[in-house]
Amino acid sequence: MSEFLRLVPPDEARSVLLSGIAAPLADVESVETTHALHRVTAEDVLAPHALPEFRRSTVDGFAVRAGDTFGASPSLPAYLKLAGEVEMGATPRFVLEAAQCGLIHTGGMLPTGADAVVMLEDAQTVRAEVVSASPNDEIEILKAVAPGENVIAVGEDVQAGQTVLPRGMRLRPQEIGGLMALGITSVRVVRKPHVGLISSGDEIVDPHTRPLPGQVRDVNAYSIAALVSEVGGDPVLCGVVADEPGRTEAAARRALAECDVVVITAGSSASTRDLTAKAIASLGAPGVLVHGVNIRPGKPTILGVCGGKAVIGLPGNPVSALVIARLFLLPVIGLLLGLREAGRRASVMARLASNLASQSGREDWWPVRLCESQTPQQAWLAEPIFSRSNLIFSLVAAHGLIRIAPESNGLSAGETVVVELF
Amino acid sequence: MSEFLRLVPPDEARSVLLSGIAAPLADVESVETTHALHRVTAEDVLAPHALPEFRRSTVDGFAVRAGDTFGASPSLPAYLKLAGEVEMGATPRFVLEAAQCGLIHTGGMLPTGADAVVMLEDAQTVRAEVVSASPNDEIEILKAVAPGENVIAVGEDVQAGQTVLPRGMRLRPQEIGGLMALGITSVRVVRKPHVGLISSGDEIVDPHTRPLPGQVRDVNAYSIAALVSEVGGDPVLCGVVADEPGRTEAAARRALAECDVVVITAGSSASTRDLTAKAIASLGAPGVLVHGVNIRPGKPTILGVCGGKAVIGLPGNPVSALVIARLFLLPVIGLLLGLREAGRRASVMARLASNLASQSGREDWWPVRLCESQTPQQAWLAEPIFSRSNLIFSLVAAHGLIRIAPESNGLSAGETVVVELF
Repeated sequence: MSEFLRLVPPDEARSVLLSGIAAPLADVESVETTHALHRVTAEDVLAPHALPEFRRSTVDGFAVRAGDTFGASPSLPAYLKLAGEVEMGATPRFVLEAAQCGLIHTGGMLPTGADAVVMLEDAQTVRAEVVSASPNDEIEILKAVAPGENVIAVGEDVQAGQTVLPRGMRLRPQEIGGLMALGITSVRVVRKPHVGLISSGDEIVDPHTRPLPGQVRDVNAYSIAALVSEVGGDPVLCGVVADEPGRTEAAARRALAECDVVVITAGSSASTRDLTAKAIASLGAPGVLVHGVNIRPGKPTILGVCGGKAVIGLPGNPVSALVIARLFLLPVIGLLLGLREAGRRASVMARLASNLASQSGREDWWPVRLCESQTPQQAWLAEPIFSRSNLIFSLVAAHGLIRIAPESNGLSAGETVVVELF
Repeated sequence: MSEFLRLVPPDEARSVLLSGIAAPLADVESVETTHALHRVTAEDVLAPHALPEFRRSTVDGFAVRAGDTFGASPSLPAYLKLAGEVEMGATPRFVLEAAQCGLIHTGGMLPTGADAVVMLEDAQTVRAEVVSASPNDEIEILKAVAPGENVIAVGEDVQAGQTVLPRGMRLRPQEIGGLMALGITSVRVVRKPHVGLISSGDEIVDPHTRPLPGQVRDVNAYSIAALVSEVGGDPVLCGVVADEPGRTEAAARRALAECDVVVITAGSSASTRDLTAKAIASLGAPGVLVHGVNIRPGKPTILGVCGGKAVIGLPGNPVSALVIARLFLLPVIGLLLGLREAGRRASVMARLASNLASQSGREDWWPVRLCESQTPQQAWLAEPIFSRSNLIFSLVAAHGLIRIAPESNGLSAGETVVVELF
């Protein structure tokens, strides 16, 4: 058995894996911006024009030449003649001359000649309400404004030609909105990485069938497929293969030809894991890079690279498989997508409800349940879930994971911990 | 103008809105479990059978009667006769008699008669390697095991008939895996709430067209649509309507007939907002519940309920629109979905980079950029983005939002803050 001769620290194992793969993917797709949520830009996106393209008022009020309001105050108003009203969505039909003002609404286009806007509440007409002012009415300006005041300048949001989104950015709602603001209705994104998922084990059957005694349904291919979808990958279910030397290898070879990453969830016995390692070794150089990681759960993890593609042997236990996929497969997908910013995983701070022991040198990941805490400072209490890593429903009860660093011997009840949500 | 007579505190505004709507949706859909990621269960899911359905070994080793190993130690081994090997995925072909053991692999089914498993490393044969042991070989057991040791009992993961997922649970990868483990290949989920999105304003044009001078492209319908999709709603784009009294009302009425929630992103002028309020008031009782919220950005928010459905008037500024949609629309969608657990929004802790002033009584939400911090304790530094709420690209630069509570006058540089990621 080649495994466990040396258990590699998780960070080192991840570095070794990531440094071996060819990334990011070179394939680019053009998708409608309205369908591009969570996709990753394949190239820098430049603004085709400035935003806004014209000077806009940020308030309801009167467009003025700022100089005409110099010294204006409630006790000494400036009197300006109303030149007209700026119609929304159109070029003003008048040019603002000296000692004139123009009624303007929020978002309206400043007339030529104007350089500032006086807010409605800082003006009044000699007659009734300002909003019903008629052309040539006299408007009392009660407050001086500086040039540019209450105005968005041309290009204040973005300049023409400016890089508005860098390559490798995952599109969120605000990016979708920003692209639409610029009329960029389709966007070039990185193709979704295809992640081949092979389940091996004589006892594993397709979940759509009724297992015979001794058989269990495949769990890992489906939980990992969902995880892959969640982070923008494209899971490819490659089926269940029996534990025979040629089978795993043949399935992995087929998957590797079609996919960008291959994940083999091994049967959980040592002999099955050896088959996985042998299959990976046969697929191309450099082959197996890590066989055994100093982590719990997930010690029997196998990490390999074959011809620039990551091939990962996940432990068969469903909890271990999910934890290890989060720690090793997700960074691979991020790298293939060319994601600029990784590592800011969603988390909450919580107070740990009970002591957790750990072996020094080993990194532990504990599933925890979050409960509302009674203390006002810390909103959440994290209760560790003491269960075996072969029970999938222990993760169903969990809200997240906490990490116990390799250099630590454990955590104490009452400590503040970071809970990575999942 | 009816607005701003009283600015309602955000929490009160949200309660008023949520308490008026009819929720959760009664419509249920059956979807393939493999396509159910992030959907919300419409009813409790019960286990059709126990998991596991048979006693499984958690290690590679020898199935034994625990009593036969009593007192066994390296210096005084128990000698057991090998009855056979448990084939993976099948019922053992032998029954374990007293003083016998059976070779078993991780995940294998315990033979009748056995009640514990001795790990491979705690046994040896008188001949070569234990893994090549032949029937009737004598196995030396070097360690005593207790009944149940290294065994998963029937139903240890879940019991037959047990509620494995409650109603109102958003399905994550582990739930997908758990359902497949039980052979539940389709699942009943709440229909996605339809969220009608109307953009009003004479200056607003469809983003697929080239705006004329004075016009701007619709941003909010698209950013809010993306936000709605992200949380499991179904956005329905209802187009742009001009600022004429009948138009907004007619569009809102149509949208309300088809959708479960209607969002009107108002033009940003006060007169347009009044049209929105009038439209909401005309759609059904109770109509407008809140007109003006004590919050920045987003003061001109309008919240209404018409015939049990939420109708929300968002401010026209793209930043305000997104912030307000997060604070008021998302909880509505959560309630319609019947989500059991809300309020655990993803966040990170960070150190604030500069002072932020706020007006007491008002709740502020500041966009911030996260930078890697130099201090070891706090991984992130949060830099507030000082920009106007009408600049969509200020949100593109942001990683999240920080909240300044109404009772606070601001935050100081160096303070630890919670950054809600988006």
